[in-house]
Amino acid sequence: MAASLRLPSLTSFFTSPSATIRRRSPAVLRWRHRPRYPLTAAFSSQSAAASPPGTEERVAGKKPQSDDRVVTPRSVDFNAWYLDVIDHAELADYGPVRGTMVIRPYGYAIWEAIQEYLNVKFKETGHSNMYFPQFIPYSFIEKEASHVEGFSPELALVTIGGGKELEEKLVVRPTSETIVNHMFTQWIHSYRDLPLMVNQWANVTRWEMRTKPFVRTLEFLWQEGHTAHANPEEAEKEAMQMIDVYTKFAYEQAAIPVIAGRKSKVETFAGASRTYTIEAMMGDRKALQAGTSHNLGQNFSRAFGTQFTDENGQRQHVWQTSWAISTRFVGGIIMTHGDDAGLMLPPRLAPVQVVIVPIWKKDSEKQGVLAAASSVKVVLKSAGIKVQLDDSEQRTPGWKFNFWEMKGVPLRIEIGPRDVSSNSVVVSRRDIPGKQGKVFGISMEPPVIEAYVKEKLDEVQSSLLERAISFRDGNIVDVSSYDELKDAISQGKWARGPWSASDQDELKVKEETGATIRCFPFEQPEEVKTCLMTGIPAKEVAIFAKSY
Amino acid sequence: MAASLRLPSLTSFFTSPSATIRRRSPAVLRWRHRPRYPLTAAFSSQSAAASPPGTEERVAGKKPQSDDRVVTPRSVDFNAWYLDVIDHAELADYGPVRGTMVIRPYGYAIWEAIQEYLNVKFKETGHSNMYFPQFIPYSFIEKEASHVEGFSPELALVTIGGGKELEEKLVVRPTSETIVNHMFTQWIHSYRDLPLMVNQWANVTRWEMRTKPFVRTLEFLWQEGHTAHANPEEAEKEAMQMIDVYTKFAYEQAAIPVIAGRKSKVETFAGASRTYTIEAMMGDRKALQAGTSHNLGQNFSRAFGTQFTDENGQRQHVWQTSWAISTRFVGGIIMTHGDDAGLMLPPRLAPVQVVIVPIWKKDSEKQGVLAAASSVKVVLKSAGIKVQLDDSEQRTPGWKFNFWEMKGVPLRIEIGPRDVSSNSVVVSRRDIPGKQGKVFGISMEPPVIEAYVKEKLDEVQSSLLERAISFRDGNIVDVSSYDELKDAISQGKWARGPWSASDQDELKVKEETGATIRCFPFEQPEEVKTCLMTGIPAKEVAIFAKSY
Repeated sequence: MAASLRLPSLTSFFTSPSATIRRRSPAVLRWRHRPRYPLTAAFSSQSAAASPPGTEERVAGKKPQSDDRVVTPRSVDFNAWYLDVIDHAELADYGPVRGTMVIRPYGYAIWEAIQEYLNVKFKETGHSNMYFPQFIPYSFIEKEASHVEGFSPELALVTIGGGKELEEKLVVRPTSETIVNHMFTQWIHSYRDLPLMVNQWANVTRWEMRTKPFVRTLEFLWQEGHTAHANPEEAEKEAMQMIDVYTKFAYEQAAIPVIAGRKSKVETFAGASRTYTIEAMMGDRKALQAGTSHNLGQNFSRAFGTQFTDENGQRQHVWQTSWAISTRFVGGIIMTHGDDAGLMLPPRLAPVQVVIVPIWKKDSEKQGVLAAASSVKVVLKSAGIKVQLDDSEQRTPGWKFNFWEMKGVPLRIEIGPRDVSSNSVVVSRRDIPGKQGKVFGISMEPPVIEAYVKEKLDEVQSSLLERAISFRDGNIVDVSSYDELKDAISQGKWARGPWSASDQDELKVKEETGATIRCFPFEQPEEVKTCLMTGIPAKEVAIFAKSY
Repeated sequence: MAASLRLPSLTSFFTSPSATIRRRSPAVLRWRHRPRYPLTAAFSSQSAAASPPGTEERVAGKKPQSDDRVVTPRSVDFNAWYLDVIDHAELADYGPVRGTMVIRPYGYAIWEAIQEYLNVKFKETGHSNMYFPQFIPYSFIEKEASHVEGFSPELALVTIGGGKELEEKLVVRPTSETIVNHMFTQWIHSYRDLPLMVNQWANVTRWEMRTKPFVRTLEFLWQEGHTAHANPEEAEKEAMQMIDVYTKFAYEQAAIPVIAGRKSKVETFAGASRTYTIEAMMGDRKALQAGTSHNLGQNFSRAFGTQFTDENGQRQHVWQTSWAISTRFVGGIIMTHGDDAGLMLPPRLAPVQVVIVPIWKKDSEKQGVLAAASSVKVVLKSAGIKVQLDDSEQRTPGWKFNFWEMKGVPLRIEIGPRDVSSNSVVVSRRDIPGKQGKVFGISMEPPVIEAYVKEKLDEVQSSLLERAISFRDGNIVDVSSYDELKDAISQGKWARGPWSASDQDELKVKEETGATIRCFPFEQPEEVKTCLMTGIPAKEVAIFAKSY
């Protein structure tokens, strides 16, 4: 079994409590993930005792396994912690090409939950899904001046097709505004064809130099919405509507209290007139741009001649928007909620919302415990709850506790022989460690357990959001001078202050502090303000932060 | 409005009945799509009469519009008919790069219906979705000998990334067996990690020379399942299970009576030990390979060293499968069921199952008709039926009838003033033209209309399948000699006959008749057989046909 010891498969991590301390590199101390629920002697002997005939060897073969899978504590090295969690929770793996990522089933299931919610919202707001080809003639990219400037350094180019050198290089889409406009030009003729509102779920490629799983990869998955309108007001309304959809999604589904606002000119999307963004504070207090919505004005319609005949018979260029959320958001969830025990998933996006762990010592107890566990599973499942019963006999309950905590499952139900006798279960919350998060004696009666679990899932959902809000608000500093800004940034915090200075000043801040303007938040204080940099009047406060 | 006349937007085709005959090319006579429901004088004056104040100009401006959108009859030119239907039903459009396709919302909605069904089936059969990167190092493709031979002529290669020439060319995935095995090798260690069963929904690229929307495009969308097993029996069982899932899908959802069977060695997937296929007969009697499932044996696991430690501690290579269905299937639906009036969709895959067309002459009737139409819509929608109310005032009912027939909507509900008085509706079936498919006096009472519509949808679903079965069976000829085979093929039919001849003989048939072995069907006659080519005993019959 030696081969299975060193690898991140389901069968090879978190085992017996005999910890060994190992080092990954001289700099980073790695320690064994501490089981919060000590494995009692009774538990550790369970699997062999409970094995059906013929499985002894198999179970025995597992027991002396690896202690070498450890998670770096968040406080020691946030980046190492992040990568460890992705590895141990089996969210993703590195692809063979530098900077690419394989999204593993558990990570992909989170993305599917994101898709499920957003897809419905997009349709409710009048958008249809469709699909544009990913190969774009190179000449298209060059048509919109700031677009080519923004994207040409990070293009992947197909130059050979079917064994032959191509006459025109093809760009593997980094985003689709150009090809979308090429098609819109053919479909839009009169004001009756407007608004045209579409979305696609697709892969995109950007040749990034510094990559990080989910956050920045050479290829990633996203949705990109594209709309065309008959006037600028409608386009603006649409761009705002979609950043609002994203904001609600972040708060209500992902429990991420993003700050929504407008990007500075410097940070605006290449080709957009205005970019709206949702900015999230990660556990290390760096900002993550988690979704954007662009008012493209007539920039692409002018470049591609996308015109319509208005109600007065005049030809006009359409006004457009585009907006996107990507698999990067999964990284945002990990870095917002996770802790040293691993992932912590908001119930509304969790692929498994409740895990049931049956516990027994004696063979005579097994049947009753498993029957009770199964019936609770059936009750919860038919109530629409995503529930998993971990009845494998290869692992101890303690191992399972740790494993499902690492996977971020919001609630755990434990059922032992005493619970069966009293017709009740024990429910533990992932977000409250130890005994405080554990409630004994919840009745197994279907209406009771169903209502209890639903209520607890809602509580976990709210509690994750509240915690993230406190963390965010405790780490934003109001500043009124550049010195205060520098001070806040050097403490790792976000600085919020009035800003009306130049693009050059903005770049200077970036050079000197590493922080950029994340956004001018939609929510603005009402007082009269003076620019923190220049002292002249400022209409708005901006938020500065270091970012991913 | 001149610009909007020549284009495939919703507002510009099928208008007044004054037909003009036009020619697309000297060879192909194109004629106006004949409205089956003549637009009466009453209907044709409706839109202006019913217009709210201020819309007269808009409506008036539409009336004298184009007669230039016509569909080639299927019998005149099947290929032209196919392309016309794709265009007129707004299923797809050509992308800017040769051979690429834009899937428009209505076409994409059919693909989404396919995805919805299959995605559930894949999960029910134990598979998880995930995502592999699309860029594959060129060296990977070369590792499996027959795989590289099969795929290297049609590869798209990325040679430049981030402005620099790459050290190793990257293949844009034509299929993912190689990268899947690269990853499986890292994830699989012991028999406990098996079976490993995953699927991805993704785009793939094959540099095809002759392309055709949906059927064969440079880039297409598909799902590809990949599994690894501990023994050959399990892999075989899985490959068979998945071709069975596809077969059921084709029959029960798409109403396409595919013939499932095994590919000949010549036609087996590059890298597979055995390929199973579902073959569908299109309206022109050519065969369409509509889905495949491969038993890969140990071909890829040997090439990539994908091994596991078995229960006896021995290292073994895994046994694998892969299986796929693509957007080509949408082409299969069009070419199986469509007729001269356009698309005809099986209810279970139709994005719109029922369209409601309100009809009124006088303004005084309008409110009552629209109220009734809305209430029927609400009833059907809450019964889970995909219903659309076409209450636009820019078009006559006759125009709408033609339009929604072109879109293949299975049922149409007409509601006029007389229907409102009698609290009833008229229901027309897409699959039965004219008065025969029309039933008057169906009560609007919610339980009645709901039950009636559900029953009719089921009937349309069955009737499409039955019709396709008759067509298929009327066009398969049992042959016992090569002359008979040639005769059947030259008549455009499928030839079924005993076959045990060589690969060379098979290639000779292809050269001389244009037909290939589509499959050795799973359903075989019981009699003793002699090979149609050689006269020696043959275990199986094969089906020969020309194909897409």
